Amino acid sequence: MERLYSERINQVKASEIREILKLTQRPEIISFAGGLPAPELFPVEAMKVVSQKVLNEMGPEALQYSTTEGYDPLRTKIAQRMERVGIKAVKEDILITNGSQQGLDFTGKIFINPGDYVLCESPSYLGAINAFRAYECQFKEIQTDSQGMVLSHLEEVLQTTPHVKFIYVIPDFQNPSGRTWSAERRKALVEIANRYNVMIIEDNPYGELRFEGESIGTIKSFDTQGRVVYLGTFSKTFSPGLRIGWVLASPEVLNKYIIVKQGADLQASSMSQREINSYLDLYDFDAHIESIKAVYKKRRDLMIDTVKLEFPESAKIEVPSGGLFAWVELPQNVDTRKVLVQAIDHKVAFVPGGSFFPNGGQENFMRLNFSNMSEEKIVEGIKRLGKILREVL
Amino acid sequence: MERLYSERINQVKASEIREILKLTQRPEIISFAGGLPAPELFPVEAMKVVSQKVLNEMGPEALQYSTTEGYDPLRTKIAQRMERVGIKAVKEDILITNGSQQGLDFTGKIFINPGDYVLCESPSYLGAINAFRAYECQFKEIQTDSQGMVLSHLEEVLQTTPHVKFIYVIPDFQNPSGRTWSAERRKALVEIANRYNVMIIEDNPYGELRFEGESIGTIKSFDTQGRVVYLGTFSKTFSPGLRIGWVLASPEVLNKYIIVKQGADLQASSMSQREINSYLDLYDFDAHIESIKAVYKKRRDLMIDTVKLEFPESAKIEVPSGGLFAWVELPQNVDTRKVLVQAIDHKVAFVPGGSFFPNGGQENFMRLNFSNMSEEKIVEGIKRLGKILREVL
Repeated sequence: MERLYSERINQVKASEIREILKLTQRPEIISFAGGLPAPELFPVEAMKVVSQKVLNEMGPEALQYSTTEGYDPLRTKIAQRMERVGIKAVKEDILITNGSQQGLDFTGKIFINPGDYVLCESPSYLGAINAFRAYECQFKEIQTDSQGMVLSHLEEVLQTTPHVKFIYVIPDFQNPSGRTWSAERRKALVEIANRYNVMIIEDNPYGELRFEGESIGTIKSFDTQGRVVYLGTFSKTFSPGLRIGWVLASPEVLNKYIIVKQGADLQASSMSQREINSYLDLYDFDAHIESIKAVYKKRRDLMIDTVKLEFPESAKIEVPSGGLFAWVELPQNVDTRKVLVQAIDHKVAFVPGGSFFPNGGQENFMRLNFSNMSEEKIVEGIKRLGKILREVL
Repeated sequence: MERLYSERINQVKASEIREILKLTQRPEIISFAGGLPAPELFPVEAMKVVSQKVLNEMGPEALQYSTTEGYDPLRTKIAQRMERVGIKAVKEDILITNGSQQGLDFTGKIFINPGDYVLCESPSYLGAINAFRAYECQFKEIQTDSQGMVLSHLEEVLQTTPHVKFIYVIPDFQNPSGRTWSAERRKALVEIANRYNVMIIEDNPYGELRFEGESIGTIKSFDTQGRVVYLGTFSKTFSPGLRIGWVLASPEVLNKYIIVKQGADLQASSMSQREINSYLDLYDFDAHIESIKAVYKKRRDLMIDTVKLEFPESAKIEVPSGGLFAWVELPQNVDTRKVLVQAIDHKVAFVPGGSFFPNGGQENFMRLNFSNMSEEKIVEGIKRLGKILREVL
């Protein structure tokens, strides 16, 4: 069938994370790969209540087709919650998607022509890179430091790069680096985007999982020209298995996302949308998020402490103030893809950092997920990794 | 933002069906528009049982991320059910999608380069046309008669059209025409596709809803070269609101769909997949389908009889032997878009046939859905339409 495939499909590769996830599903593996929430914290009992309630009160409606935009009461609740991150929104600003990954795919479809450039943080989220690449874009990686993108580098790239459509950023507890942008950088990014007439895609799956410090307003909250598309999700705060996220954008732009959603799969699950809506009516979602944060914070602390104890001194780990991931830099001569092969032999897994640099060439990083493993396994897994690294270095 | 959008997004328009659905959601409207199953037949009580069972027995797993390919027990059951339509399959041949609409979108992504031709039945499903158009294809409509595509016309078009990637067909109770392909045409279509090296996309959402006559083997059942991609769904037999469908294809081709699914939204709902799987374990799905067919057959009969009684003699209606739709041809000077405006005034709706011809120009058809309205409303709605048509003609 070779000659029948599209050009774009040849750009797309299977996600390394997904392939690794398959390996690491074996229960004997201690996995710091993947980006899985802790399943023991899922609101299973509440789901039992709301699924019955939805089926009792609106069963036929919950199993029927519904509008592409999403279930209005849920859209309204999401719009209201956006106020906490500095965004004034009404339900008409919200499109319900199948997780925020779908928002990324739609972003590629709506903005990218083959050959266009996407600017992203270096490193950036692998799933976004793959979603955009399917639309045959090229990437320019923008240097980052502990405050976010280095804006002088961003401007330099914008000045010298044609056909830039958007800047893709994860400003809160970034995947994979765990870093969070400062308020100054957020504001300045919007100014730059206005000046160069490019869009900003703000992907914020982890923002609600802040362990310490004050919440910083979203980039969208500084948007005055409808230039920021904001992607949110219930995957990290409620359940990823239900596949419910959202896109928030200005009316003209959101309309493109709605049209694309129609063609892509008509709508998100009528049932799941109503279950989450009913959950938000009946339960204290914020208290639930607090309980997740408490567990993750302990796991982060334990992972950081154990890494400092067990990894060679030349390994540098950054302390994320929230989210799911810690990021380790090793000396430049270390290839973490090779380390992973040894790690799997010792029944421990992580994601080699190279996957997160769309233009490649940086193999000396590792992404460690701390949300999904018990404290006991965190200690044991980091010890095993430390042993391998001390041998390698 | 005008200059920032992609070329492809300018090709895509909002689906007329979706826009009309919004209008016709008003309860006072008798709607033969849309393609909605009868909600009173949805297995609400069974859903209550299986949602509890899934949450009790595997709650955390049902709310967690899972593999892109889908839930293995469900994939296995779908593969087994494929035997009924003459397809030998194993779970590895199946990818779970968000309804078959997502399979259509992925098909466009995998095969279409801008400017490529898609061959389809004339008329064809609007949702497929829109999904493919987003990848900047052009369409050649192939003439159809009561047996399916007119194959001499198909060959003529294949001989004279460059860059044909696939032939898209709905061989069972087609949307919108209600027509079903003969076995001879199915077999011959595969031979032609082999000869011209093009793919066949067999979209079969209605095949299980046959009211009379013997089931005809699927086009896929005649496939010897892995050239047919088969799209199935639970939307018309179980629930469209759960958004669970599947793609069945040969390994190399299915692998493309899996990779695209990863980038598009990672996976279908872990919960919905397990609910349907549990339903198939606990309940008699075939008996459920029989009960749907009994109701739809009565509605079809009543609609056909009433149309024959109430519509002007120059209106020709074809009798579908299954599915959800009846197709009416009116004299060439009638523009059913204008008829719809009058119909909405009289609180009755249908889809003007023009939407189903991708290259336009045929406005004298109407698609009537008979699955979603009660018998009483079918009679009343057809009477109202008949009155309008008698005035127009």
